[in-house]
Amino acid sequence: MRLRLTPREDSFYDMFADSANNLVTGARLLVELISDGTDREAIAEKMRACEHAGDEATHAIMRRLNESFITPFDREDIYRLASLLDDVMDFMEEAADLVVLYKIDELPKDIISQVEVLERAAELTAEAMPRLRSMKDLNEYWIEINRLENQGDQVYRRLLAKLFSGDYDALTVMKLKQVIDQLEEAADAFESVANTIETIAVKES
Amino acid sequence: MRLRLTPREDSFYDMFADSANNLVTGARLLVELISDGTDREAIAEKMRACEHAGDEATHAIMRRLNESFITPFDREDIYRLASLLDDVMDFMEEAADLVVLYKIDELPKDIISQVEVLERAAELTAEAMPRLRSMKDLNEYWIEINRLENQGDQVYRRLLAKLFSGDYDALTVMKLKQVIDQLEEAADAFESVANTIETIAVKES
Amino acid sequence: MRLRLTPREDSFYDMFADSANNLVTGARLLVELISDGTDREAIAEKMRACEHAGDEATHAIMRRLNESFITPFDREDIYRLASLLDDVMDFMEEAADLVVLYKIDELPKDIISQVEVLERAAELTAEAMPRLRSMKDLNEYWIEINRLENQGDQVYRRLLAKLFSGDYDALTVMKLKQVIDQLEEAADAFESVANTIETIAVKES
Repeated sequence: MRLRLTPREDSFYDMFADSANNLVTGARLLVELISDGTDREAIAEKMRACEHAGDEATHAIMRRLNESFITPFDREDIYRLASLLDDVMDFMEEAADLVVLYKIDELPKDIISQVEVLERAAELTAEAMPRLRSMKDLNEYWIEINRLENQGDQVYRRLLAKLFSGDYDALTVMKLKQVIDQLEEAADAFESVANTIETIAVKES
Repeated sequence: MRLRLTPREDSFYDMFADSANNLVTGARLLVELISDGTDREAIAEKMRACEHAGDEATHAIMRRLNESFITPFDREDIYRLASLLDDVMDFMEEAADLVVLYKIDELPKDIISQVEVLERAAELTAEAMPRLRSMKDLNEYWIEINRLENQGDQVYRRLLAKLFSGDYDALTVMKLKQVIDQLEEAADAFESVANTIETIAVKES
Repeated sequence: MRLRLTPREDSFYDMFADSANNLVTGARLLVELISDGTDREAIAEKMRACEHAGDEATHAIMRRLNESFITPFDREDIYRLASLLDDVMDFMEEAADLVVLYKIDELPKDIISQVEVLERAAELTAEAMPRLRSMKDLNEYWIEINRLENQGDQVYRRLLAKLFSGDYDALTVMKLKQVIDQLEEAADAFESVANTIETIAVKES
């Protein structure tokens, strides 16, 4: 008989993968949402369901963390990683919610670039999760996420300049700024996810 | 003679109770503040005193934490719980301060619902603190805090829609939004307090 | 032969000193930036370089932390201190960036007081870092940082009242508020740095 001291520690990897895959779904809903002529109310509704699924995934990780004696990497890193993945979803859902709440009809064109950055970051993050097991081939992921975050920053700054260019009245600026701020926060949170994974990898190496 | 290795660890419970009771005082001051025809300057002054009392309470917990070898639950959970209780007070005080600083005369009617949510959350939190000792009967508290947080979200969203409905000029929207944002942050912080207590309870179980 | 189990733990002190000295450079650039008739684009460029240097410094601390078995004080305190020093720089750089992005020509006069608080706080923080070795003579530093943070709060509140006094149109208020908010966040982060150092000192005492 072989003793299994850590019978289910592997499940952390699967749980992180679930959480990251959920972000891909959320980011794709955002792309749909900002396209013209879609039923935004319906998409925001799906986004809320997606955010609930994210909450469940986070909760499951936290519960497992609290019940486990042995964890595949440091407890505080697991906690941080789960929280950050949850944050990304919250920011994306909040952005979608504000578009509907404020009945924003016309979004500045560049917002599509901001959302595409999120979609690509979500895909990269989901692809990286299974590699946490071996801690191999993560280098490309960090480089690409950092490149994306820089690109996102550029787009965000361009959008800010556009908002305050005089093309919009003050109330519209306020509404739109809340939306693009949430998207920028989501991009930043993706970078924090990558930084946390780098920290874990350095410790394991 | 009986050895007492942890002669004063019990005091953590009392200190958390102090901190939470202080939030009840603060939330009730908020209810007063937003009522019509009150001396807002005077109430904001009391609120500042309340915030100072909260700072003292937090500081006392942190000092005890740093001096204690043995703690009733994980150090980082004590740290997080104390910080979050402190955050709630800071958000509430900031809201009161802004109402006075901006000389806001008329507040949107629904803001009373937002503040009542905070009052109820403060009461529930204060009632839950003594139960940390036994870790019993905390379930109701979580369910109710979560219900309140959802209710608070609804009210907050209704207030946002109202602010941007065209009834207010842009500068007024900016001022009012700052106030209701602080109140919403306070509600969120109450939920984080409850989540932290749940984490502690799961570990102890 | 004398065994050196922790041959390079001392370097943490030097690294924190580097990080804090970088904040002095950054704060002085801010003073330059808000003076009349300077080439703001050029200064913001230097600020970006300064922020990159700060990132490198933070990264170096984190890497060392992850590689070290033994650290001069608790790992989570090293992590927190490094992160907070990094935050200060980010807030200062963001403020400079916004001034240039929004092409803000006239800044409210009081903003100089806000920036001078940051300059003084940076100097005090840089002077305190070498004293982490002995943990001596830190009392003055805490008292003075707290005094500065209070002073900064007063200036910030005065600036807010000024912004909403009716002297500015709504879009200008929004732009200026973003700038002074970042500066206020930097001041708060300096206080958090001081609080973290106090925590470390209490544990060591």
